[in-house]
Amino acid sequence: MSKALPKRSENYSEWYNELVKRADLAENSAVRGCMVIKPYGYSIWEKMQRALDDMFKETGHTNAYFPLFIPKSYLSKEASHVEGFAKECAVVTHYRLKNDPNGKGVIVDPDARLEEELIVRPTSETVIWSTYKNWIQSYRDLPLLINQWANVVRWEMRTRLFLRTAEFLWQEGHTAHSTATEAVAEARQMLDVYTTFAEEWMALPVLRGVKTANERFAGAVDTYCIEALMQDGKALQAGTSHFLGQNFAAAFDVKFQDKDGKLEYVWGTSWGVSTRLMGALIMAHSDDNGLVLPPKLAPIQVVIVPIYKNEEQLDAISDKAAEIMKELKKRGISVKYDNNDAYKPGYKFAEYELKGVPVRLAMGARDLENNTVEVARRDTKTKETVSLEGITEYISDLLDNIQEAVYNKALAFREENTVKVDTMEEFTKILDDRGGFILAHWDGTSETEEKIKEETKATIRCIPLNQEAEDGVCIYSGKPSKGRVVFARAY
Amino acid sequence: MSKALPKRSENYSEWYNELVKRADLAENSAVRGCMVIKPYGYSIWEKMQRALDDMFKETGHTNAYFPLFIPKSYLSKEASHVEGFAKECAVVTHYRLKNDPNGKGVIVDPDARLEEELIVRPTSETVIWSTYKNWIQSYRDLPLLINQWANVVRWEMRTRLFLRTAEFLWQEGHTAHSTATEAVAEARQMLDVYTTFAEEWMALPVLRGVKTANERFAGAVDTYCIEALMQDGKALQAGTSHFLGQNFAAAFDVKFQDKDGKLEYVWGTSWGVSTRLMGALIMAHSDDNGLVLPPKLAPIQVVIVPIYKNEEQLDAISDKAAEIMKELKKRGISVKYDNNDAYKPGYKFAEYELKGVPVRLAMGARDLENNTVEVARRDTKTKETVSLEGITEYISDLLDNIQEAVYNKALAFREENTVKVDTMEEFTKILDDRGGFILAHWDGTSETEEKIKEETKATIRCIPLNQEAEDGVCIYSGKPSKGRVVFARAY
Repeated sequence: MSKALPKRSENYSEWYNELVKRADLAENSAVRGCMVIKPYGYSIWEKMQRALDDMFKETGHTNAYFPLFIPKSYLSKEASHVEGFAKECAVVTHYRLKNDPNGKGVIVDPDARLEEELIVRPTSETVIWSTYKNWIQSYRDLPLLINQWANVVRWEMRTRLFLRTAEFLWQEGHTAHSTATEAVAEARQMLDVYTTFAEEWMALPVLRGVKTANERFAGAVDTYCIEALMQDGKALQAGTSHFLGQNFAAAFDVKFQDKDGKLEYVWGTSWGVSTRLMGALIMAHSDDNGLVLPPKLAPIQVVIVPIYKNEEQLDAISDKAAEIMKELKKRGISVKYDNNDAYKPGYKFAEYELKGVPVRLAMGARDLENNTVEVARRDTKTKETVSLEGITEYISDLLDNIQEAVYNKALAFREENTVKVDTMEEFTKILDDRGGFILAHWDGTSETEEKIKEETKATIRCIPLNQEAEDGVCIYSGKPSKGRVVFARAY
Repeated sequence: MSKALPKRSENYSEWYNELVKRADLAENSAVRGCMVIKPYGYSIWEKMQRALDDMFKETGHTNAYFPLFIPKSYLSKEASHVEGFAKECAVVTHYRLKNDPNGKGVIVDPDARLEEELIVRPTSETVIWSTYKNWIQSYRDLPLLINQWANVVRWEMRTRLFLRTAEFLWQEGHTAHSTATEAVAEARQMLDVYTTFAEEWMALPVLRGVKTANERFAGAVDTYCIEALMQDGKALQAGTSHFLGQNFAAAFDVKFQDKDGKLEYVWGTSWGVSTRLMGALIMAHSDDNGLVLPPKLAPIQVVIVPIYKNEEQLDAISDKAAEIMKELKKRGISVKYDNNDAYKPGYKFAEYELKGVPVRLAMGARDLENNTVEVARRDTKTKETVSLEGITEYISDLLDNIQEAVYNKALAFREENTVKVDTMEEFTKILDDRGGFILAHWDGTSETEEKIKEETKATIRCIPLNQEAEDGVCIYSGKPSKGRVVFARAY
């Protein structure tokens, strides 16, 4: 706590890593690429889960649970799917250990080899569609609207806390429909849910679009996505929703009888967000003093710190604090009173700044006399002395204001850092200077997209859903284009 | 749905298996021993999770998340722990697949072998205590009160849905303390929490006790447990809470500086309940017509079925049903209106009986005239016609009564099936005739316990916490004993 965080302007990457650790969000474990999500970090994730889960249920989905393990042969059934996931998966080959005959602990028992290897799920389309085959016979069984909260494993070689870890937590929705139109509508609806969640809960403005073929989910016909901008000018994909067409239904032979008695393959979607959102939340809003949390996701929304010279003062302040807390809690505001005697107020202030507590109340002897309290906002670092008359209402409004202000700040940042560009020269210069979202014309070919990526490390984040029709020429090939797409370097 | 369930009296085991599948609770997956928890089953589990999680938080615990994988060497650090889990664990040896050079799908890439094999967690003491080592330095860091909701894998050879599966869902609490007294108090407190949950939510009366050395958790000093009795006379362990002493602290070198500056090993507990509770819930209360759910855990507490001859009648009933539903929902009662025209009322009645919906309302033309509704209780299968005046209050009270009645019925069954026995002859006879809990004297040795198990398949479920002092002689060895322990055949 004593050492300052690295500054964003000096080493953004180091600032992020240090912040994640010092704010008690997560840390690396002894297992390569796997993180420990610490209680404070997990409590933010729980709030995200609760909000998302409520939205999933409001839109008619129910939760279920499917196996952690996927038989190797299942993964292979959808050709592009296995291509996408085979290179980075954890493979279970044995089911027993035995004592080392040389007396050195335990070894894998060679006699306990599985007949077929099992893959720790990197995503669950295959195991779920193999199950859906038994659940779906008729149009009456559709739509099937299921979500799963689970851990998944992708054996990433270069990992970073929350952003890219070998194991991560997520939800994955898997739905089945009788028509393509309905499945596309579902995929779009879930993109809307993610957008609402990102903007209203995470205070994170997002661009909405569809991925190019290169960036599409392995096995999807179309991948819709939301893309957010981080403070270092890099983009972060914050959620994806896939229209799977009939790909997995065909791979697992899932057919239904329609109203006319005709057998047809089922149409599918899948959609997910993960603990990666924690990374987005941290990187989008926080500053050189620590986390800045939007109030709706803050585990502690208000902290009260007493400033006292003796026990008598402390007792009087504690009484007053108890009253305030009672009223705040009635409003559903989470509040902590920190009367820990081992630390000085200044230390506590720094600690709660680091942890991103949106509102800090400090109360001293003079406040008691004047019936006031000092209110400090984490996001703007402004302070003011406020009367205790109507303090509950004041704080409740303040939390709403902070939620909005955090969003508006991120939105203003994104707007400042979104530019239209018409030449490769300007494109490269902006990427190197400050990054951000670059709107540029592209000829629609994977070849050009790859060339641009090779030369600049920028990828097409999405073709915006609200793309404006505009005649232009591709910045790379000079071939004609009908509208701009969004480029950025990305996490 | 059309075929009747097997009867409990004829084939209890088959009755259970069929009920789990037909009531849409769970099914076997393509992966040996791993189940799919279906939406209806999962919604009961979610209710259990929510209730337990609230109780954990009320007692000061927070959630966190630790890695799925455990390095093989970690498992070996606590001698009895590895002994307990090494024989049935899933081992990850590789991190990549590649295309089969013979063109047959994908194979494990022999070049992608892990340096050290990883075990899919069977329980997380080792990975968590290795983490606690960095979190605990001083008595000020204690107690550390953490819980995790997670999936775990134990490679069981004989599996049954919910009761014994290779992968299951559970929560595992892992706490660290500065004194043995405090750690024991924590383990006992969590046993209390489990007891309250079993009795008040699951309507499941439980015996509370401590395990003998033979049945103790691998690595614990003492294992406290709650034991429930199923309708076939077999016991089911419904939750355990372990006092770990300093075993894991010593294995992972977790020391703290006490107030006097002395370094000492930390004291630990762990405690868990799992999706096995679903099995207990089903087996304790259900009957030959299907599930009987205690209202507090029922995903649908009330179903309304319209009985109509024409559209006009249906419309009138639907209007009335909407009014009732609105009022019930205001009370937090979950209610479903089933106006699906594809099925007849009789079919629906059977379906909701199978699913264990506690209260069914049927409303027809005559009810509309008389301002009444037919109310059917799932637990007693009794029906009565009730005035719609005050129906909300009536149903709310009825749900409370059902919760209590389901508990009382299970309690009466347990009391009828708990007997004191003083000879091996009687012991064996009762076990074979009807099972149940048998209170008998035991000489306190593992040897006798094992002999009895070999000869009768009965184990000591627990030494009751409220054991009465009573001089007697061991039913097997004739050696002296100071009190009775609880024997049963068990799941």
